Amino acid sequence: MYLEKIKQPSDVRQLDMEQLKELAAEMRAALLKKLSVHGGHFGPNFGMVEATIALHYVFDSPVDKFVFDVSHQSYCHKMLTGRADAFLYEEHYDDVSGYSCPEESAHDFFNIGHTSTSVSLACGLAKARDVKGEHENIIAVIGDGSLSGGEALEGLDYAAELGSNLIVVVNDNGMSIAENHGGLYGNLKLLRETNGTAECNLFAAMGLDYLFVKDGNDIAQLIAAFEKVKDSERPVVVHICTQKGKGYAPAERQKENWHWCIPFDIKTGEPSFTFDGEDYGSMTADYLLGKMKEDRRVVAITSATPAVFGFTEEKRKAAGAQFVDVGIAEEHAVALASGIAANGGKPVYGVYSTFIQRTYDQLSQDLCINRNPATIITFAASVYGMNDVTHLGIYDIPMMGNIPNLVYLAPTTKEEYFAMLDWSIGQKDYPVAIRVPGGNVISDGRKVTKDYGKLNQYEVTKKGSRVAIIALGTFYALGEKTAEAIAEQTGVQPTVINPVYITGIDETLLEELKDDHDVVITLEDGVLDGGFGEKIARFYGASDMKVLNYGLKKEFLDRYDVNEVLRENRLTAEQMTEDVLRLL
Amino acid sequence: MYLEKIKQPSDVRQLDMEQLKELAAEMRAALLKKLSVHGGHFGPNFGMVEATIALHYVFDSPVDKFVFDVSHQSYCHKMLTGRADAFLYEEHYDDVSGYSCPEESAHDFFNIGHTSTSVSLACGLAKARDVKGEHENIIAVIGDGSLSGGEALEGLDYAAELGSNLIVVVNDNGMSIAENHGGLYGNLKLLRETNGTAECNLFAAMGLDYLFVKDGNDIAQLIAAFEKVKDSERPVVVHICTQKGKGYAPAERQKENWHWCIPFDIKTGEPSFTFDGEDYGSMTADYLLGKMKEDRRVVAITSATPAVFGFTEEKRKAAGAQFVDVGIAEEHAVALASGIAANGGKPVYGVYSTFIQRTYDQLSQDLCINRNPATIITFAASVYGMNDVTHLGIYDIPMMGNIPNLVYLAPTTKEEYFAMLDWSIGQKDYPVAIRVPGGNVISDGRKVTKDYGKLNQYEVTKKGSRVAIIALGTFYALGEKTAEAIAEQTGVQPTVINPVYITGIDETLLEELKDDHDVVITLEDGVLDGGFGEKIARFYGASDMKVLNYGLKKEFLDRYDVNEVLRENRLTAEQMTEDVLRLL
Repeated sequence: MYLEKIKQPSDVRQLDMEQLKELAAEMRAALLKKLSVHGGHFGPNFGMVEATIALHYVFDSPVDKFVFDVSHQSYCHKMLTGRADAFLYEEHYDDVSGYSCPEESAHDFFNIGHTSTSVSLACGLAKARDVKGEHENIIAVIGDGSLSGGEALEGLDYAAELGSNLIVVVNDNGMSIAENHGGLYGNLKLLRETNGTAECNLFAAMGLDYLFVKDGNDIAQLIAAFEKVKDSERPVVVHICTQKGKGYAPAERQKENWHWCIPFDIKTGEPSFTFDGEDYGSMTADYLLGKMKEDRRVVAITSATPAVFGFTEEKRKAAGAQFVDVGIAEEHAVALASGIAANGGKPVYGVYSTFIQRTYDQLSQDLCINRNPATIITFAASVYGMNDVTHLGIYDIPMMGNIPNLVYLAPTTKEEYFAMLDWSIGQKDYPVAIRVPGGNVISDGRKVTKDYGKLNQYEVTKKGSRVAIIALGTFYALGEKTAEAIAEQTGVQPTVINPVYITGIDETLLEELKDDHDVVITLEDGVLDGGFGEKIARFYGASDMKVLNYGLKKEFLDRYDVNEVLRENRLTAEQMTEDVLRLL
Repeated sequence: MYLEKIKQPSDVRQLDMEQLKELAAEMRAALLKKLSVHGGHFGPNFGMVEATIALHYVFDSPVDKFVFDVSHQSYCHKMLTGRADAFLYEEHYDDVSGYSCPEESAHDFFNIGHTSTSVSLACGLAKARDVKGEHENIIAVIGDGSLSGGEALEGLDYAAELGSNLIVVVNDNGMSIAENHGGLYGNLKLLRETNGTAECNLFAAMGLDYLFVKDGNDIAQLIAAFEKVKDSERPVVVHICTQKGKGYAPAERQKENWHWCIPFDIKTGEPSFTFDGEDYGSMTADYLLGKMKEDRRVVAITSATPAVFGFTEEKRKAAGAQFVDVGIAEEHAVALASGIAANGGKPVYGVYSTFIQRTYDQLSQDLCINRNPATIITFAASVYGMNDVTHLGIYDIPMMGNIPNLVYLAPTTKEEYFAMLDWSIGQKDYPVAIRVPGGNVISDGRKVTKDYGKLNQYEVTKKGSRVAIIALGTFYALGEKTAEAIAEQTGVQPTVINPVYITGIDETLLEELKDDHDVVITLEDGVLDGGFGEKIARFYGASDMKVLNYGLKKEFLDRYDVNEVLRENRLTAEQMTEDVLRLL
């Protein structure tokens, strides 16, 4: 086996063409086995095997520097840069992260997990090289799906002006996570169909040199192309056409489903386990499809992650023109929603918490200054969400929650969630965001009658005394549990409050609490800094009320154990009870 | 005079070509007079006189809907939509804002002030029209300078897929605020030089139809072109070539200086008043030029606003390759800075507070997760900054200050500012941002010896008792004044603290204050929600310390009087003293 012996990229260069092909086969076999056991990004890596071999054959990493966009396709790069064991041996599977990671290897330059950043980051490496008078190659590897992101387009536009070595490998497999969207993909298609000879060329229009590689899964073609652009003194795009999921039949057939996979049976491609509980994603799609039938003004929007709110291919078809996938273009998605709302439509944008981060200014300027009644649903906004450092969903409260005019709601149950969605789609006064709870779906069957338009009226769900527990969203149940523990240990029944509104304070209620409460505690499923609880602390700052804020420390967590993180932040009923008892 | 009689766009359609030309001349005369007295965006409006007339001649506003990018070029549109008085009569000059404004007129659909948003917003209007089954024209008007912004490129890419009527007028004057940057401007040049016939066409590559207008200041040519695309059933770009500042010789010559103007003498073009105090902008440029000479790794970055940190054309030349203008592309600027720092360079990005808003995700993902030692300088981050609703600089603390790993510093004097800059450029451990104080430059001549690398050590500048005043950045002087007022009225000398660090808490010091202090007040020049003071309130939440947080209410202010806003937020020494006395 060659792969076992590849300790560094120079080892790749010792192999002849037949051996390189053998190496590619070994890499695919290792990927298949690891992913069948471990899960991970399937399609992107299967498509990039040959290109990664060719890159390391031609360039001299880490002197020459690679920046992989999203870096979910960097497994092959890891295999060839001293990290093959993490793909060959089950006991080492967790030695590496799923993304590029400078802490792991000198061949990685950035932690990357969001799309469309590679060209700009690579421009930075190149600019520093130039002012230092050095001469290495800088190579950005970007998938076609990432090209529609504004940061990528800004980067390509700037690259031309860099005027020195920068090689942008565009890995064109005709897919984002789902199918691609946007006009530029028509141009990629034209280029594919003309072997790159069409005069109308997006990259040339941005001032870049251009080279076309017809078969991006052919090592010889790739090596020839990379040799040609090596040490180029001008920025150049190498457009390679690859097949997503190449080498595994189910993944070649079902590209969207095999973008990312959970453990599966290699023979059948069937997942090793299924989840048959309720999930907010598919319930949301069904709900919205119903709304769309009633009202043609309802438009669901995704930025290339339709699955986040349950829009499978079938449901997208059912929605027709009332479902819009803008491609990876979160900024556009928010501005589009604002525009739709400004002209009497009812837009609903479903998005991961980690990706709404890309839209602060659009939320503020395009949406909230204009008070347009768009609805945003933020998913995986929770410590129970994705746990890679680049995909955390615990920062959206400070990020969005302090923008004027936005009404950000935190449901605690399925019933509340849909009541909020109903209200939001029906009203015309506010931009609204709804923070889908993390963890399992909680349903209490209760009919919700609250009028959410009466802003910032918290709900007292249990009236008690001395201690008040204000427990937001996901952590409402934990708040209830803490109340029980306190009642049990002290005989004092705490008041329990569902604050509902992230973005405002119920001053009347908080004022009233002063009468017969000594301690208020707040719980929120996100970082404390700039979050919900601090507003309560500020409110009571000059009073005798004691306030304890519970939430997560401001830090970048990575591949964490949820329960450990909760304990470290004293977010267990036992710890909170202990703290409260000390104050009584 | 025709202009006086234009009460609505249909009045424009009553005029013949000679009369329209006369109208254009009257509009320029009105602009010249108003701007000479009032100041405002000069170049963009002078260039757009004819195009605006032609748009209103051909389209039927407000049924047909215009979205002006940045909308700083919408003065002419205002003149033709019932707001001419605000340009004709000095007593009405302040009746209108400097941007499009739905509160003013049914012909305006959004408050817009940031660039690159028009195409996406217009797509939204068009999408709503389509699902409602309506048929009006939707027209985005975007300057070439705005095209490099990611949101604009995302919007253009999506527009093709809209598949229905959308008219994007690209106003190409070869300029942003300063000269244009980025590869796509080469393509615009090519298109100009070939009368729009070049096969390589950025807009066509994005899937859009395309029409070229050679003289964008010729009403007849413009009308013919707009007639041609009216009711188009596909998205189409109309590329019009205009002259920025047309019709006033000094503005035609000095396009960068005349993008925006303060009141001036019409005969000479000389400003009516000059500012001869020190300003942070030009001091920063001089300082950085010195640094660049010492160290070729220092790279200053701007996103199309070089003047913000004093880089005049002359100083840009002096900096050479160590000065980078990325064009309007803030996201790219931050990622570029991160890349430069990752490869051993020393990037310094100077940016307005209101525009750093476009980069939350780049700050978090590209920069701070990777802990790269880039320096960001935020200007006009203050209630004393720009006061249009779209250009406020009072949200950056909640936006940036809660991102892990970032060290955000708040200098109170010129000496501190430069000491921080020195430290930041020299160190390799942290991404750093420095919040330039608002208002006049304060200098105390003190030599600063603090080691900023010892994070979160606040400075006690006056040791007192009972009351502690933690006064951040701009408001430090106000904090000192308040201390004096309290001392005078009570005999109690408050402790005065310069916290220096926006992003961290000096727990040791705050703990010590408990010994002999009863009240802590915090002052910050920005919104309170998610800001600095709330962290102090949280820290003391469970203690007996009384905390009062002073700062601005979370709201979108517009064209406000600073002193009034300060009074409304109890941000005067008298009001704060009164509040503190009540607690003693």
